[in-house]
Amino acid sequence: MISKKMENMVANSSAIRAMFEEGNRLAKIYGPENVFDFSLGNPNVPAPDAVKNAINKILREEDPVVLHGYTNSNAGYEDVRQAVAESLNERFGTQFSAKNITMTVGAAGGLNVILKALINPGDEVIAFAPYFGEYRSYTDNYDGVLVEVSPNTVDFQPKLDEFERRITAKTKAVIVNSPNNPTGVVYSESTIRKMAAIMEKKQSEFGTEIYLISDEPYRELVYDGVEVPYLTKYYDNTVVGYSYSKSLSLPGERIGYLVIPDEAADSEKLIHAANVATRILGFVNAPTLQQKVVKACLNEKTDISYYDRNRKTLYNGLKELGFECIKPEGAFYLFVKSPAADEKSFCAEAKKHNILIVPGTSFACPGYVRIAYCVSYETIVNSLPKFAELAKTYHL
Amino acid sequence: MISKKMENMVANSSAIRAMFEEGNRLAKIYGPENVFDFSLGNPNVPAPDAVKNAINKILREEDPVVLHGYTNSNAGYEDVRQAVAESLNERFGTQFSAKNITMTVGAAGGLNVILKALINPGDEVIAFAPYFGEYRSYTDNYDGVLVEVSPNTVDFQPKLDEFERRITAKTKAVIVNSPNNPTGVVYSESTIRKMAAIMEKKQSEFGTEIYLISDEPYRELVYDGVEVPYLTKYYDNTVVGYSYSKSLSLPGERIGYLVIPDEAADSEKLIHAANVATRILGFVNAPTLQQKVVKACLNEKTDISYYDRNRKTLYNGLKELGFECIKPEGAFYLFVKSPAADEKSFCAEAKKHNILIVPGTSFACPGYVRIAYCVSYETIVNSLPKFAELAKTYHL
Repeated sequence: MISKKMENMVANSSAIRAMFEEGNRLAKIYGPENVFDFSLGNPNVPAPDAVKNAINKILREEDPVVLHGYTNSNAGYEDVRQAVAESLNERFGTQFSAKNITMTVGAAGGLNVILKALINPGDEVIAFAPYFGEYRSYTDNYDGVLVEVSPNTVDFQPKLDEFERRITAKTKAVIVNSPNNPTGVVYSESTIRKMAAIMEKKQSEFGTEIYLISDEPYRELVYDGVEVPYLTKYYDNTVVGYSYSKSLSLPGERIGYLVIPDEAADSEKLIHAANVATRILGFVNAPTLQQKVVKACLNEKTDISYYDRNRKTLYNGLKELGFECIKPEGAFYLFVKSPAADEKSFCAEAKKHNILIVPGTSFACPGYVRIAYCVSYETIVNSLPKFAELAKTYHL
Repeated sequence: MISKKMENMVANSSAIRAMFEEGNRLAKIYGPENVFDFSLGNPNVPAPDAVKNAINKILREEDPVVLHGYTNSNAGYEDVRQAVAESLNERFGTQFSAKNITMTVGAAGGLNVILKALINPGDEVIAFAPYFGEYRSYTDNYDGVLVEVSPNTVDFQPKLDEFERRITAKTKAVIVNSPNNPTGVVYSESTIRKMAAIMEKKQSEFGTEIYLISDEPYRELVYDGVEVPYLTKYYDNTVVGYSYSKSLSLPGERIGYLVIPDEAADSEKLIHAANVATRILGFVNAPTLQQKVVKACLNEKTDISYYDRNRKTLYNGLKELGFECIKPEGAFYLFVKSPAADEKSFCAEAKKHNILIVPGTSFACPGYVRIAYCVSYETIVNSLPKFAELAKTYHL
């Protein structure tokens, strides 16, 4: 009785669901400390104390009728949006004001809002494999067609020659995600400049507008002093989707924002459409208390050193065991080459050692697996002997 | 450059947007105390103190990694869902457990989730005029077709003979909203029984399943001891969408739930589909802190006496002035017959007296206007002389 689209979704989602249930089953048998669940991107670093302090202060000082009420605009509180804009301007030398910011129910909410605003049935949305599998569902929600650029498994920078060939008159949007889930790779400034030039050229060629959607939940999670270019400065038709899920460890609270710059084609109408989309998709507005929280915490940072220690320990440990993997510069994922041709069999083998990892097929990149290292340091350390057993199985 | 669907939405939404801007403009000229803005259903009663106390307690006691993290299931915290189920069972003699509850981003989020789960393109969704205008947008999000049953302006109970004629083999869902926005009418138990019988008959006739979606944000806002029937007890294929927006005055926080009973056809699959829809529509999960808040506040009640005083004062005041209006038994709206054939001209005339009200056309019921009385008592009292001037204009 459920819709045909959902029939497919439900069937496809059962693999991850099965993994989750398997994790619970294993934890019951062996104890949770003996199960190494690297499957989910759920931060293990607590939200900074500033979050709790901000909530307490807001509850003391604000009128509850206003604080918990609908916001005047579906885009969110004017003061919050202005503060977000000014914070971005200070960090990146941009020129945003409140009107350019739409507060959203996380980045996932933001991406749905901007795709709803932009996509006609049959419009094409380009994504670079490996990519977060939900992009396909989000695009399909609006009857768009996801077009893949195949993975460059040398350094996981996007394949720009193939990208150029994939752009057609129907290309309405391109999604990039840097620092990247699942590889941890940061797209270099040189990559971004070339990508922008290609899109400019294709816009002229087809007489179209192609929007670059930058999905940035991992922007603040970078290591070794790497810089993440701010994309609105390189390409006019850029929309940024941000989330505080990882930077403030608030994934469950569903708070983020979209940036729609004045330079984007049809900017005013697009901002208005994002506003209306926020309403009619049922978000209505981003949760109001959390809007006020992020305003109070704009200068807070999560404890990167925690993830960095995990990153180095796991990366070095796996390399020593003979696994192949690109060293991530951001996010909290390792994307490891499967020692078996079929990475699903490798994941199944790993599970025998109580290690739960996600097959690359979920990110349109078979032959690899994703390891989410946003877990406790103990989990990392204790997993290494298990990975050693696993390496032996494959004669690494 | 925005999508064609959104072009229409943006054009249609500008009327309400214009009213909002007009309100701000008038407030600047005359002072906010001299503008009587009855346009929005934004509660003026503050959230009960229990909400603030619950937040403080939760922040003190819960591990922030779990509290602000993703929930294991997209349907929300198991303990919250179980507590909601038990609370419903106690109040209504139902038999729900955690699995029947999906926590949602308000009722608007819940309605989108269940429509996404159910609707194929071209499927029909029936609504009874007057109805909340967003139902049309929500249905359109999934390429469903909203089918209207015309308003019964005698007592605003649904026209059941017309309802029966409107059901076709393509009817997938029926949305009811009682207590009703915009009329404040509560559908009687007799109405519900007849409606259920019609749907049963038509299901047999067409060999289909027709889901009754009960949109219940106003369930707790009833006066004069009126009972609101719990619809899952009258019809198996019922899904309930609830919101704490009005009952706890938390509209901005976006917290509510869906009930999908075991008795509903294909229940297990539908629950799973709602779970997946929650994820892929970008909600991911209902805001986690607010999930815990509503668990702690299941027995809290908003101050109905506040709205009741407004209701009586405004209803009696308007009747004395010669306006025609059905006495609402729930919600916080009066649905008043326009003294001009074209109610939009009446709204424009009202605006000259700094009274802002919404034309019935927005609820598929021209010739009427909606007055939201969830405002301060002073606004009610001070508006009556203005309504008197308005009545004079129409020689009432």
